[in-house]
Amino acid sequence: MDKVKVGIIGIGNMGSGHCNTLLSNQVPEMELIAVADLKESRRNWAKENLPESVMIFENGDVLIEAKVCDAVIVATPHYDHPRLVMKTLEYGQHALSEKPAGVYTKQVRQMNEAAAKSNLVFAMMFNQRTNHVYRKMYELVHGGTLGAIKRVNWIITDWYRTQAYYNSGEWRATWEGEGGGVLLNQCPHNLDLLQWICGMPNKVQAFCHNGKWHDIEVEDDVTAYLEYPGGATGVFVTTTGDAPGTNRFEITLEKGKLVCEEDKLTLFELETSEREYCYSATEGFKKPEGHDVILETDGKNPQHVGVLNAFAGKILHGTPLVAEGTEGINGLTLSNAMHLSSWINKPVELPFDEELFLTELNKRRADSKLKKNVKETVYNTESSYGSEKK
Amino acid sequence: MDKVKVGIIGIGNMGSGHCNTLLSNQVPEMELIAVADLKESRRNWAKENLPESVMIFENGDVLIEAKVCDAVIVATPHYDHPRLVMKTLEYGQHALSEKPAGVYTKQVRQMNEAAAKSNLVFAMMFNQRTNHVYRKMYELVHGGTLGAIKRVNWIITDWYRTQAYYNSGEWRATWEGEGGGVLLNQCPHNLDLLQWICGMPNKVQAFCHNGKWHDIEVEDDVTAYLEYPGGATGVFVTTTGDAPGTNRFEITLEKGKLVCEEDKLTLFELETSEREYCYSATEGFKKPEGHDVILETDGKNPQHVGVLNAFAGKILHGTPLVAEGTEGINGLTLSNAMHLSSWINKPVELPFDEELFLTELNKRRADSKLKKNVKETVYNTESSYGSEKK
Repeated sequence: MDKVKVGIIGIGNMGSGHCNTLLSNQVPEMELIAVADLKESRRNWAKENLPESVMIFENGDVLIEAKVCDAVIVATPHYDHPRLVMKTLEYGQHALSEKPAGVYTKQVRQMNEAAAKSNLVFAMMFNQRTNHVYRKMYELVHGGTLGAIKRVNWIITDWYRTQAYYNSGEWRATWEGEGGGVLLNQCPHNLDLLQWICGMPNKVQAFCHNGKWHDIEVEDDVTAYLEYPGGATGVFVTTTGDAPGTNRFEITLEKGKLVCEEDKLTLFELETSEREYCYSATEGFKKPEGHDVILETDGKNPQHVGVLNAFAGKILHGTPLVAEGTEGINGLTLSNAMHLSSWINKPVELPFDEELFLTELNKRRADSKLKKNVKETVYNTESSYGSEKK
Repeated sequence: MDKVKVGIIGIGNMGSGHCNTLLSNQVPEMELIAVADLKESRRNWAKENLPESVMIFENGDVLIEAKVCDAVIVATPHYDHPRLVMKTLEYGQHALSEKPAGVYTKQVRQMNEAAAKSNLVFAMMFNQRTNHVYRKMYELVHGGTLGAIKRVNWIITDWYRTQAYYNSGEWRATWEGEGGGVLLNQCPHNLDLLQWICGMPNKVQAFCHNGKWHDIEVEDDVTAYLEYPGGATGVFVTTTGDAPGTNRFEITLEKGKLVCEEDKLTLFELETSEREYCYSATEGFKKPEGHDVILETDGKNPQHVGVLNAFAGKILHGTPLVAEGTEGINGLTLSNAMHLSSWINKPVELPFDEELFLTELNKRRADSKLKKNVKETVYNTESSYGSEKK
């Protein structure tokens, strides 16, 4: 195999974007050979816009069963990710899942177990891990020279969406269609980065507000408090209702403070660990000495192209993925824990009760209503993934 | 009366600072004529450092009972503020209380009732209200052109203190001596500014950690979530354990966003209200247009001098105070609600149960231990109140 033959299931916002990426020669080791969509309107779009060589299937199952692909990208609504990934692997094809990995961790756990048993590649589309500033944060935090994390604070409120966005699909922002709001649709990248860089908390208390800023049944405003096994605490605030929003990710460590704001990363590094200084200083009000550090990054931010190239590389040459598929459960665990703690109005310890979560989610699905008077729209989201270094 | 004759009760860190201010000719309508302190070491300091004309009393009660002053500044440990303010008013003298107004709202409510019945001036030392950036925030939020508040986020973690600070007094950072930690000692200014600028929330859930970064029995790390009657939510994060800390106060409103960080205030103003835009826009991902606003402030930051001059002005000419004494209960209510919600591990609605708070506080006082091996120290805190405009 010198090129990976790829099929895409679901050609809405994300899937059609991946079609364009694959057709633009930015992923030289992949070839788009098939797409599938339940909607006739999207299949018609494919007929009109994709090369004649690309096969068009009426649903993901038949695309997988046809066994024409080496690898399948699952870009359907969230609930179907685990089932289609498992089926893809079962039929001997490599799988790349869009985020989130699923809607509830129980189904994602099953998917991960199936992936562990297969010899196939399973990857997650965590394209934000390719952003040079987040890679640098990962490197600095995991490098160890800054010591343990003491505090995390991510205000990520620049996910602004209008009511028109929510009116663009009858399944959008419903418990039955998507299983959640801003946590499941906008924040999977942020929740993945949070756990990738800072690790997993062991206690979560969130305050989710449903339909606070929009006419929707799911949450569009979340404040979450986190506690980590090492003693650190954290805050995660998100919404689709703030304009202008903020994207400010601050990590305080024993030997310094990292702040990533609007794509710019700064580090203040201490000469000595604050933990040592605190107990050895003879002055009451003085602070440990430190200095700003000029950070060099490689400036690269290849996003989906980076994930797709790495996916092909892993299949063909065994080189590393951007994100292993099995890591998708971590961000979803955060999301589920935030929902659950808000629903039961008390802190949730991790690992949480997956059955209780599913029971609570299913209550909401039972009362869920598809939207009326929607205007089906497919959006181009290309401009929303941060920038290369200027 | 052309000059207010002032006595100061408690000449530790704050009180001795006020002595210096009054002796420096920065408050022309006030004259320091008396001080009182329980500690002989502080009375000796007064003998050596204050003019011979200044009377020295062994405690606040005798200073008040002597009736030699027109006005009294109460700068004792927190628990005694309400009692000494009430006694001052009872003896016909004007009162200025250091922050916090007290340790629990029940005692402060009694003080406020006494003040309401008197014709005397009662002021709070909320010197941070004189800072030009906070005055500008107040003006912009209350001016109304920015619409209602949607979100508040104050990360105020630059209250760094070493263990040596906590070892500087046996009563310091004990439930019996101070009644709390960072919320009662460092944050009264921030909690007052928060309520002054943003109003009072109606629901509070805090997560307080006792002795997390220091060997103390009270809290030195707090994350609080707030809900406001108008629907806004808020986060307040503070600690004495972070170096370098952060001071970033962000307020998102319907028509703009204010950010005050490290003494610099910025405003991004929208052309239309986000609330209208959200429902009228036809695009899903677009944001309402807006622009940065160049903010002019008067650059003044007179701090204690400003509060003292206004106190004299009110007594002599009836001109306004910086902060009415009766407003001290608001910030303390926030502080008490944060403590209580953390102690009972669930959200607290305002007004909260004052008896329950006092019961819980008294449990902690009963187990409280004065510190051993302390090294009594008085600190000069002059440099910690923000700057004039450069």
